[in-house]
Amino acid sequence: MARPRVVIVGGGFGGLYAARGLKRVDVDVTIVDRRNHHLFQPLLYQVATAALAGPDIAAPIRKILRHQENVRVLLGEATEVDTAARELVLADGRVGYDHLVLAVGAVDHYFGNDGWAEHAPGLKSLGDALEIRRRILLAYERAEREPDVARRREHLTFVVVGGGPTGVELAGSLAEIARHTLARNFRAFDPRETRVLLVEGEDRVLPAYPPELSAKAAAQLERLGVTLWTSTRVTGIDAGGVDLGDERIVSRTVLWAAGIRAHPLVGTLGAPCDRSGRVLVEPDLSAPDHPEIRVIGDAAAVRGEEGDVPGVAPAAIQMGRYAAAAIEAAVRGETPEPFRYVDKGMMATIGRRAAVARVGRWKLSGIVAWWMWLLVHIIFLVGFRNRLAVMIEWAFWYLTYQRSARVIVTDAERA
Amino acid sequence: MARPRVVIVGGGFGGLYAARGLKRVDVDVTIVDRRNHHLFQPLLYQVATAALAGPDIAAPIRKILRHQENVRVLLGEATEVDTAARELVLADGRVGYDHLVLAVGAVDHYFGNDGWAEHAPGLKSLGDALEIRRRILLAYERAEREPDVARRREHLTFVVVGGGPTGVELAGSLAEIARHTLARNFRAFDPRETRVLLVEGEDRVLPAYPPELSAKAAAQLERLGVTLWTSTRVTGIDAGGVDLGDERIVSRTVLWAAGIRAHPLVGTLGAPCDRSGRVLVEPDLSAPDHPEIRVIGDAAAVRGEEGDVPGVAPAAIQMGRYAAAAIEAAVRGETPEPFRYVDKGMMATIGRRAAVARVGRWKLSGIVAWWMWLLVHIIFLVGFRNRLAVMIEWAFWYLTYQRSARVIVTDAERA
Repeated sequence: MARPRVVIVGGGFGGLYAARGLKRVDVDVTIVDRRNHHLFQPLLYQVATAALAGPDIAAPIRKILRHQENVRVLLGEATEVDTAARELVLADGRVGYDHLVLAVGAVDHYFGNDGWAEHAPGLKSLGDALEIRRRILLAYERAEREPDVARRREHLTFVVVGGGPTGVELAGSLAEIARHTLARNFRAFDPRETRVLLVEGEDRVLPAYPPELSAKAAAQLERLGVTLWTSTRVTGIDAGGVDLGDERIVSRTVLWAAGIRAHPLVGTLGAPCDRSGRVLVEPDLSAPDHPEIRVIGDAAAVRGEEGDVPGVAPAAIQMGRYAAAAIEAAVRGETPEPFRYVDKGMMATIGRRAAVARVGRWKLSGIVAWWMWLLVHIIFLVGFRNRLAVMIEWAFWYLTYQRSARVIVTDAERA
Repeated sequence: MARPRVVIVGGGFGGLYAARGLKRVDVDVTIVDRRNHHLFQPLLYQVATAALAGPDIAAPIRKILRHQENVRVLLGEATEVDTAARELVLADGRVGYDHLVLAVGAVDHYFGNDGWAEHAPGLKSLGDALEIRRRILLAYERAEREPDVARRREHLTFVVVGGGPTGVELAGSLAEIARHTLARNFRAFDPRETRVLLVEGEDRVLPAYPPELSAKAAAQLERLGVTLWTSTRVTGIDAGGVDLGDERIVSRTVLWAAGIRAHPLVGTLGAPCDRSGRVLVEPDLSAPDHPEIRVIGDAAAVRGEEGDVPGVAPAAIQMGRYAAAAIEAAVRGETPEPFRYVDKGMMATIGRRAAVARVGRWKLSGIVAWWMWLLVHIIFLVGFRNRLAVMIEWAFWYLTYQRSARVIVTDAERA
């Protein structure tokens, strides 16, 4: 009998951990991604804000999995799931499966205003991050060449829409760049003239966090010079600025961190979804009526004991591990236990030595939370054998020939 | 009396050293570049071959010069020199000068076959390097998905046109990637099947080097698995391969390192040029009949005591320093001594522990030359306060808020 074919779509945290979990299982695994690299998404805002180079937070999927003999990696764009034929449809072919894991993540969601995308890019891929970096840096270059004070102000106003962790991290970084990084770099103006506005529809930033931490985050952001506009809804975005009901802010650089929805591939399953397009999965993360298909990570709506499982990396990792175990059980003819999310907490960084974190019932902020954030992220990055240092890299390259910058950023991504 | 206005076009080695050399001179300096960053071009092939990230070898020009109060940096595209009005014409404005330094470097030269550019990109900018990296990595991804052996061979054949230092470095890196970096990364083929061909019109690689070193370089390349086609001229390049007179090589990835010419801006001077478009400058590096205009670096044809001054970084640095001193003399009403090139030698690297170098009359090859190459380049990079390590970077960012990845890669560059 042929070995069961497991197809995993997506090389993010969920897909990668699902593949790794199948290492000692007697199956043939194919992992399909339209990019050649796994991305350490929690640090993507640092690429967008020029603190890190793209390759610092990316590693080729096939390099990570090269020692796992039962895995092959395909660069390809999945367009549809043919559930009747049990085939994954690619832009240029088909791959048959016995078990399918959809770990496709999320895409930006402009709530029906797709025209905003052009003026307010979101931050999901390395291409997005490089585009945002380009816009931020060009805004300052244009300000240096703009003699008119009012028009210079348009270039020196940055609006971040959405006060979740990504929005908070982007706004904090923008304020640090203006206050510290660019000091003395310009002759026609002082970068400290820069305005950074963070717009949030709810009445506080980090609405998913305990209210005390939202307040701490707000205070830390304001200390950095970020202006918070909470309880404020964006009604329009164009090339010249942002409309907020009756108000208007002129700005040439607007960044979107306000909404995401599940990748459209999961819509082709025909399964029931929530408002964000996430599949309402069964307790074993399978799609309703399709025990052979599992949806994990940001594309799945999972009820936990204390509300919805959040769209964070640890949750995707847990789901990936679970999916592998569930497939192993199914191959043996067993029934897996239901998925249980273990909530280890949440953390968001704001700037240098400024962060907030919840660990279980503990709440931390300021320097302590920041050091914890730094430690956790460094440990994670090292876990992916990614580079912490070009110096280490050169030594490593010398000893092993490995190169860590093998990252494709396609033209289409950068558009 | 107003301070003399010095305009420098180009933020490469020549332009940057010219600006630095004017630090204590009572002039207003404007440095114009169409990119926001100085590029450490000798390591650009390492970005193209995925050993380094773009930001590792780039630093914002305005960051490098931020403490020099008499310099302003403009991001802008110079299109013409209006010698009558003494103005530099930009795509969107004009800048008047009393002294002009053209340090605009070189562009790829396809010897009248501009149609080849699309199929065989050259390596001059960060955008070029990322495009080449993308092509190399995609070739392997396509090979993994190609079931037909003959067509897979097209993807696994890399042709480098031009056996100068850049061509040798690219070919050596490609061979190392195939033999070592990608080991065990693919399931459908063994990356060691890769063919790397280096095509050179002269009868030896590194024709500007002493013949013994050419022979050493050839031996080191062949040991890495590179096939050398010397005394061979390319007669055609298209999407499917390369024509070499009666012969043809099928290849989907062709890289151009065969010819450069001076940036076309110097053509607008109306001054006499050599066949590569370089201005035949006076002994003080001024353009004939224009003592107020100096042309330095790769855009200048300079006769040294032992033949033409080569287009290498140390020569550009020496010319940049000289241009600053000559302007200082002119401001004081003095006549500068003629420019004298001090030849410190040349070096090219081939692969891990493989290089060739000439230092004065000494000739070195193998491990000794490689360690010398490494040392010289590390010292140089440190000199530009560029990052050697993200780890250092993080510590540095923590202490000073400086960010080193402030590099714009424009869409147009990546086309």
